[in-house]
Amino acid sequence: MTFAYENLFAKDVPAPAVRFAGYPKYNFIGGHNDPTLIPVEGLIEATAAALRKEGAKLAMYTAAQGSQGHLGLREFVKTKAKIRGIDCSTDDILITAGSGQGIDLINAVMLEPGDTVILEEFSYGGAINKLKREGQKIVGAPLDEDGLKIDALDNILADLKAKGVTPKYVYTIPTIQNPTGSIMPLERRRQLLEVAKKYGTLIFEDECYADLIWGGTKAPPAIYSLDGGAHVVHIGSFSKTLAPALRLGYCIADWGLMSRMIAARSDSGSGALEQMVVAEYFSQNFGDHVDELSETLKGKLDTMVEAIEREFGTAVEPWTPKGGIFLWMKLPDEVDIMRLVKPAADAGIALNPGPEWAVEGADSKSRLRLCFALTSQQEIRDGVAALAKVCYEQTGIPARSGNVRRS
Amino acid sequence: MTFAYENLFAKDVPAPAVRFAGYPKYNFIGGHNDPTLIPVEGLIEATAAALRKEGAKLAMYTAAQGSQGHLGLREFVKTKAKIRGIDCSTDDILITAGSGQGIDLINAVMLEPGDTVILEEFSYGGAINKLKREGQKIVGAPLDEDGLKIDALDNILADLKAKGVTPKYVYTIPTIQNPTGSIMPLERRRQLLEVAKKYGTLIFEDECYADLIWGGTKAPPAIYSLDGGAHVVHIGSFSKTLAPALRLGYCIADWGLMSRMIAARSDSGSGALEQMVVAEYFSQNFGDHVDELSETLKGKLDTMVEAIEREFGTAVEPWTPKGGIFLWMKLPDEVDIMRLVKPAADAGIALNPGPEWAVEGADSKSRLRLCFALTSQQEIRDGVAALAKVCYEQTGIPARSGNVRRS
Repeated sequence: MTFAYENLFAKDVPAPAVRFAGYPKYNFIGGHNDPTLIPVEGLIEATAAALRKEGAKLAMYTAAQGSQGHLGLREFVKTKAKIRGIDCSTDDILITAGSGQGIDLINAVMLEPGDTVILEEFSYGGAINKLKREGQKIVGAPLDEDGLKIDALDNILADLKAKGVTPKYVYTIPTIQNPTGSIMPLERRRQLLEVAKKYGTLIFEDECYADLIWGGTKAPPAIYSLDGGAHVVHIGSFSKTLAPALRLGYCIADWGLMSRMIAARSDSGSGALEQMVVAEYFSQNFGDHVDELSETLKGKLDTMVEAIEREFGTAVEPWTPKGGIFLWMKLPDEVDIMRLVKPAADAGIALNPGPEWAVEGADSKSRLRLCFALTSQQEIRDGVAALAKVCYEQTGIPARSGNVRRS
Repeated sequence: MTFAYENLFAKDVPAPAVRFAGYPKYNFIGGHNDPTLIPVEGLIEATAAALRKEGAKLAMYTAAQGSQGHLGLREFVKTKAKIRGIDCSTDDILITAGSGQGIDLINAVMLEPGDTVILEEFSYGGAINKLKREGQKIVGAPLDEDGLKIDALDNILADLKAKGVTPKYVYTIPTIQNPTGSIMPLERRRQLLEVAKKYGTLIFEDECYADLIWGGTKAPPAIYSLDGGAHVVHIGSFSKTLAPALRLGYCIADWGLMSRMIAARSDSGSGALEQMVVAEYFSQNFGDHVDELSETLKGKLDTMVEAIEREFGTAVEPWTPKGGIFLWMKLPDEVDIMRLVKPAADAGIALNPGPEWAVEGADSKSRLRLCFALTSQQEIRDGVAALAKVCYEQTGIPARSGNVRRS
């Protein structure tokens, strides 16, 4: 017997999911992290301490801490936000089920079908997908090596204004942009805020990767810190600094917005055990953990860049990131990356094709994003070589001479 | 400065939430549980075992187990489902963020605004609210001490059919009904399935409380077990058996439905640490934990019923539940329970007014639901006495003579 009532489904029911079939050998997709750096013993200790302190509270919804989330974790977020220049109180913080829920709730409060929003031309695929699914119009704004180009954004906003359109927000990832890995300089952050205010639109600042910056680089303060929440909403995540399988992120926002986000939420809060454990662990170990993680990630990036140069030679233009877990790159124009996805999968390689990380898919038909965090150094070398082989077989690129590393 | 862009909110933005102000002294609302029975040391041990076994997997989204949830927890749900007569595989199980997410996902797949659904006349307030918010038409079907009255349901379905309406589902809580605490006999379960098939509508079976039944009573098998998923979808929860602040529930469904539910989900799965810990803890301790919990809850129910009889006398008609955490009762018709909510809150008492747990609010204007799980025995006695005092002050009921316990 199979389900008898597919005829009763809603008209706009999404296409069925496919069964999970496990991960490929060379898994370069998504936001996975380094399994060797999950602090297992540290989390065990933190769990014991947290549960002995307040485990009985798990008998109450939200562990009796209300709909903004665990107070200890909000205290930690407040402390962490100071590193990004943000001076806020625990009342300004909402714990979410990953930063993805932050995006969902902001969208639920702000957007109706047909609304216009502005995204960076290359942006987080999840954010793009959510908007497309809900029927919003996405306008892409150009990027360079310092992130969003403010003059171009001003022109876009002026054009929209001439058509009577106020975009609901400008979604930006200013600090370790996804997928390009750039950091927006302070001056541009100030200009962005002025432009947003001039046209009456919200800045939606996603700082998911801002804690993972290579040693020596210091990022300018978050845009939220320049404004205090009147024109900016800020989200972040523990997926990248600790573990994506824990579903924890946060939003920093003025109560005028946050009170609506809470009202739009229907999940009775995020898991309180995970909140307690992360609060306990990170209030002791955040700096050390993130330093070790960043150092390991930088080593993996270097290995991947070397492998790319060795295997692809001049055929690839990588955007070298200043932190994070991704390498964004471009193959020659004649390569249609979407046509490589299936042969790559057959060879055990998963990659994120550029068109899924771009507002205008066609502009990035030769681009791709590789995550270097999950795989080992050896898997990175082998996986990149396997990818070059697939690419050559399908497209003749990289040309055999290009396989010789330039000196 | 406050948020500058309320003018940009979506037209249907929900009313703002209010700040959490802590819980009242006599907290008889919601689905809280007994704080003294959170197995703190057991959870600490389970966490250590689970993290040492598979903590490194937390570096991957869903702990590398795919969108149906942690395999170990699905194994446990499969074993537990056997107690309810359900023979299913881990492929038929979806772990959700509480059973509430199960409701949200089923609604997302099945419902459009204006659709009709059938609920029991008194039902879970959360389910009623979600439907009202989305603009569905809810038809209430009458209950008696054995749950849903099948003849009456058949008449309702015939009336709807005459109007050309096929309800999308019949939502039922057959085993420890919320709020009445009844258990539907096997014969009615079979009849319900036949009626649903006759009219071509889905049975949506919520068994949130089915694990908490007083010793000696044996519930008939779940309706899902009579059908295998062609005409029934089944949800359950760990909120009631372990802790509501962990956000874990499950759905058992045919893949034809589940594959759409997974596609409708946008949260990258439930927290994997909590899933690992519950799988580890309950695969060892489920029976013992639930037995102890049920025994304690039965003791608290007895205390509450005694207190109600002592304080309210003949003024109250309680529906004595066969398990769970709630007492549902009726005051005389002249009492408007909504008018007691505020004075009760001022006296430190929180209760769930009947109209919020009823499809037709007016029919239950004198009813209320009290949760007896969170408060101590003494708080139950004191809180019920305080409630009787508030009720008398506001309505003259219970009459003073009614305060004498009948022998």
